[in-house]
Amino acid sequence: MRTRTVLITGSTSGIGLGIAHAFAAKGYNILFNGVEKNGGEIAAGVAERYQIRHLFSGADARSPQALREMVQQCVATFGSVDVLVNNAGIQHVSPVEDFPDDKWDDIIAINLSAAFHLAKAVWPVMKSQQFGRIINIASIHGLFASAFKSAYVAAKHGIVGLTKTLALEGAPFNITCNAICPGYVHTPLVEKQVQDQARAHNMSEERVMTEVFLAKQAVKSFIPMETVCAMVMLLAEDEPGTITGTALPLDGGWSAQ
Amino acid sequence: MRTRTVLITGSTSGIGLGIAHAFAAKGYNILFNGVEKNGGEIAAGVAERYQIRHLFSGADARSPQALREMVQQCVATFGSVDVLVNNAGIQHVSPVEDFPDDKWDDIIAINLSAAFHLAKAVWPVMKSQQFGRIINIASIHGLFASAFKSAYVAAKHGIVGLTKTLALEGAPFNITCNAICPGYVHTPLVEKQVQDQARAHNMSEERVMTEVFLAKQAVKSFIPMETVCAMVMLLAEDEPGTITGTALPLDGGWSAQ
Amino acid sequence: MRTRTVLITGSTSGIGLGIAHAFAAKGYNILFNGVEKNGGEIAAGVAERYQIRHLFSGADARSPQALREMVQQCVATFGSVDVLVNNAGIQHVSPVEDFPDDKWDDIIAINLSAAFHLAKAVWPVMKSQQFGRIINIASIHGLFASAFKSAYVAAKHGIVGLTKTLALEGAPFNITCNAICPGYVHTPLVEKQVQDQARAHNMSEERVMTEVFLAKQAVKSFIPMETVCAMVMLLAEDEPGTITGTALPLDGGWSAQ
Amino acid sequence: MRTRTVLITGSTSGIGLGIAHAFAAKGYNILFNGVEKNGGEIAAGVAERYQIRHLFSGADARSPQALREMVQQCVATFGSVDVLVNNAGIQHVSPVEDFPDDKWDDIIAINLSAAFHLAKAVWPVMKSQQFGRIINIASIHGLFASAFKSAYVAAKHGIVGLTKTLALEGAPFNITCNAICPGYVHTPLVEKQVQDQARAHNMSEERVMTEVFLAKQAVKSFIPMETVCAMVMLLAEDEPGTITGTALPLDGGWSAQ
Repeated sequence: MRTRTVLITGSTSGIGLGIAHAFAAKGYNILFNGVEKNGGEIAAGVAERYQIRHLFSGADARSPQALREMVQQCVATFGSVDVLVNNAGIQHVSPVEDFPDDKWDDIIAINLSAAFHLAKAVWPVMKSQQFGRIINIASIHGLFASAFKSAYVAAKHGIVGLTKTLALEGAPFNITCNAICPGYVHTPLVEKQVQDQARAHNMSEERVMTEVFLAKQAVKSFIPMETVCAMVMLLAEDEPGTITGTALPLDGGWSAQ
Repeated sequence: MRTRTVLITGSTSGIGLGIAHAFAAKGYNILFNGVEKNGGEIAAGVAERYQIRHLFSGADARSPQALREMVQQCVATFGSVDVLVNNAGIQHVSPVEDFPDDKWDDIIAINLSAAFHLAKAVWPVMKSQQFGRIINIASIHGLFASAFKSAYVAAKHGIVGLTKTLALEGAPFNITCNAICPGYVHTPLVEKQVQDQARAHNMSEERVMTEVFLAKQAVKSFIPMETVCAMVMLLAEDEPGTITGTALPLDGGWSAQ
Repeated sequence: MRTRTVLITGSTSGIGLGIAHAFAAKGYNILFNGVEKNGGEIAAGVAERYQIRHLFSGADARSPQALREMVQQCVATFGSVDVLVNNAGIQHVSPVEDFPDDKWDDIIAINLSAAFHLAKAVWPVMKSQQFGRIINIASIHGLFASAFKSAYVAAKHGIVGLTKTLALEGAPFNITCNAICPGYVHTPLVEKQVQDQARAHNMSEERVMTEVFLAKQAVKSFIPMETVCAMVMLLAEDEPGTITGTALPLDGGWSAQ
Repeated sequence: MRTRTVLITGSTSGIGLGIAHAFAAKGYNILFNGVEKNGGEIAAGVAERYQIRHLFSGADARSPQALREMVQQCVATFGSVDVLVNNAGIQHVSPVEDFPDDKWDDIIAINLSAAFHLAKAVWPVMKSQQFGRIINIASIHGLFASAFKSAYVAAKHGIVGLTKTLALEGAPFNITCNAICPGYVHTPLVEKQVQDQARAHNMSEERVMTEVFLAKQAVKSFIPMETVCAMVMLLAEDEPGTITGTALPLDGGWSAQ
C-alpha cells in the first residue's frame, strides 16, 4: 500500500504534536502546521526521529487562502491528503459582558471556520480517491459548557455540528468525519499551569489538579496523550469507515454525571 | 408589575413574527427587528392590533455596532430588555466542496455571532435588574445534521453551546438562557415551499410534506406556530428561572429515532 | 368538549400530588393512585376543592394485574384515559457491591416496568380515540448518573428509552409520549431532608441546599412545583401533538455543564 | 505482567464470539458463556486455536445465582476477572399493545439486570486489584429508539445509565465502565436475515441491506466485527483508565442525523 499522508493543524506543540508522533510512528507523511517560531525545526526533528517525509507550514488558521495553499502544497508534494486532523485552537476566558469582540472572532475563525475551509479544500481529493478520514479535536466543551468560555464552547459545539454534516456528506465516498472530545489532556502546557496555580494559591499541585482542573471529572487524572492517540489512530485506520459523525468523549467521566 | 420588554430578532416574518404576536397578546413592549422593506409597517400593525408599545429596528445582524445600538435604543425607550429572543437566521444549501465562503461567513455571523453580541449588550441590564430570559430559536439542526447544510448545522450547534455557557454565567443573576430546537414549523414560507416543490415534481402537496420535508419526523405534521409560542412563553415567564441551559426539541419525534 | 381524564401514579404525595392539583384546576377527571394509607382521603380532598370527579386506586405498581385493573376501572368510570402520567417512583442509595437484589428488582419494577404495563393497557383506548398524552416523570437521572444510585439511574434511563419508542409507535395515532427530567423539585419531602441533614451535620439549611442537594445545578434553587406543572400541562394540551419522544430537562443548568 | 482474564457473556455466537477471538488473539484467559448446546465445543475450539486457557459456563442470564456462581468459578480458576464484557442479549419485536409481558421481563432481565448482577459480583475483585474494565455491548438503541422494540430500547437505555453510574463509582479504583453502541454489525445471523428477507420480498440482498436494515445509517455497510473489536480492545487496555462512562456510537452516521 502507498504511504498515507496526514495534515495536522497546530502540530508543533501540545496535543497536535503528540498526535504527529503517533502518525510518524506508523510511517505516515506528515504536513505539520503551527505558529511556533521554531515550528520548522520541531517538525524536522520528528521526521528525523521516525524517518518519515514531512512538510511544515506556518499557515495562519484565520486565512482561508493560506489554508487552501497549505492543502495544495501537501497534495503537490505527497500526492494526497488521506487524513486531516483539525487540532489548532485557542482559548480566551472572560465573562460574556466583557468578552472582547476580536477574541470572539479569532476563536470562531481558528477553532471552527478553519476546519470548514480545510475540509472544503481536501474534499475533492478524498472524494476522488474514495478515502478520507477527518478527525476534529474538539473538547468536552463540544458537548458541555463552562462559564466564561462563551466563544470556545460555541466554537467547539459548532465543530461537532460540522462533524456530523461532513459525516453525512462523506458517507457515499468512504470519507468519515469524527470529533474527539477530551477533558484535560496531559501536556507540558497543562503541567505548567498546574505548577503556576499551585504556587500562586499556595496549594499542593495535587489539590490544584483534583479541585480546580479536574473538578468535573470523576477520574482524577489528566487524559494521557497515549489515550488520545489510540483513539485518533483507530479512527484514521477504520476501514471501511463505519465510525462516523460521532463526538467521542475521552473525559474521565465528565459527561456521565 | 411594570410592563416587560422583549427584543425579538427577525420578527417581521415567519417564526419571529409569530412569537411577536404571542408576546403582544400578553402586553409586552416589543422591539421588532427585520430586513423586510415594510418591516416598520408590519411591526406597527401588530402593535396596533394588541395596543402595545413598540419599536422597529432594521439593524443588520452582521454588524455588532448596529446590534449594540438596537439594544441601546430599546433600553432608552422602554427602560429595559427583559426578554431577548434570538430568532433571525438564514440558510444556504450546498455540498461542502462548493459551499461559498461568503455564505459560510454570513450564516456564522447572523445565526451565531449576532446572538453573542446581543447577549453581551443586554447582560449589564439583565444583571442589574436580576431578571433576564434569553431564548435562542435554534433548530433541530442544533442537535442533528442534514447533508449540505454545513454552515447552518455548525452555527446552530454553536448557539446551543452558547446557550449552555450563558446559562451557567447567568445563574447567579436570575438570567436564564435556553434554546428551542424545532423541526419544520408551519409558516407561510414553508407552505409556499411545499406548493412549489409539489408543482415542480408533480407530486401531491401531502406527499411532498411527508416524504421530503418530514422524512425524519415520526409525526407527519409541521410544528404549529402555537406550540413554539407556548414553549417560548413558558420560558419567558419561568420564575424563579430554573429551566436553563437546555436545548428543547419540538420536533415530531425526529430526535427520538 | 368532553371533560378529559388523567391517570396519575404516585399522586397522593410529592410531585404527583402537585401535578394532580394542576389537572384538577383545569377540571380534568382524575384517577389518583398511591400507597399512602390515607390516599383515598387525600384524593377526595383535592376533588372536593376543585369540584372534579375522581377515583382512587391503591394499586401496587409491582403488579401488572393491579395496574391493568386500575386502567379498566378508570375507563369504566370516566370512559377514557386521555392523559397518563407515570410518576410513581422509589429510590435506594448504595454502592453497587452492596446493592440489595430485591431493591434493584423493586426499582426496575416500579420506576420502569410499571410505565410499560400502563402504556400497554391504555394504548387501545388512546388509539381508538386518536388522542393520548403519556408523560413520564423521569429525572435528570434519566440523562446523567450519580454514584450509588445504579438501579434508579438505570430505570430512569430506561424510561427515557421507552418514551422514545412509544413516541414513534404513537405518532400515527396522535398519541405523544414525553419524559420530564427534573433536578431537585421543591416538595415537602425534600424540605424535610434539608432540615434533617442541616441538623445532623450542624450546617445551615442554605448550605445543605447549595452544597449537597444542588451541587450539580448552576441555579441554587429547587425546581418549583409550578414549573413542573407548567411543562406537564403544556405537554398534556399540545394539539396536534408534535412534541414527542423528548426528555426535557428542568434542571437548573445541571445538564449544561 | 500476569495474564489477564476476561468474562464475556453471550460469547459462543455472533458479536460475543467475535470479541472472544479478539481477546484470545491477545492471550487473555477467557470465560465463555452462552446458551448454544455446543457452546462448550465452540469455546474449546477458540481456546485451542489461540492456545489460551478457558472456561465455559452455560449460566442462564436470568438467574442472579447462576451469574454469581459463574464469576466465582472464573475467579477460582484464573484468580481474577479483569475485564467483564456484558454482551448477551435477546430481542422481541411487537407493537406495545401486544407486547407479551414475559418477553418484557426476559429482555429486562437478560439485557439489563444481568449486567448489574455481574458488575456487583466482580466489583470486590476489581476493587481489590485496583483494575477493572467493564464493557457493555449496548446498541444504537441505547441512544435512540425504533418502533416496536419497547423492551429492547428501554433495556439498552437502561444499561447506558448503569454504565454511567458504575463509571462514577469505579473512578477511585481504576475501574472503568463504558458502553458500545453499534448499529447493525456484520454477523452470520444478520447475513442470514438479509438473505431470508430478500427471498421473502423478492428484493435484491443489496436493496434489503440499504433500505431495510441500514435505512437510518448514512454509511450503507454493516459495522465490521473488526471495528467493534478494535474499540473493545482499546477500552480493555486503556491504562490508566480515563475513558469511562461513555456510550460510544459505532453506527455509520445513525446518530448524526
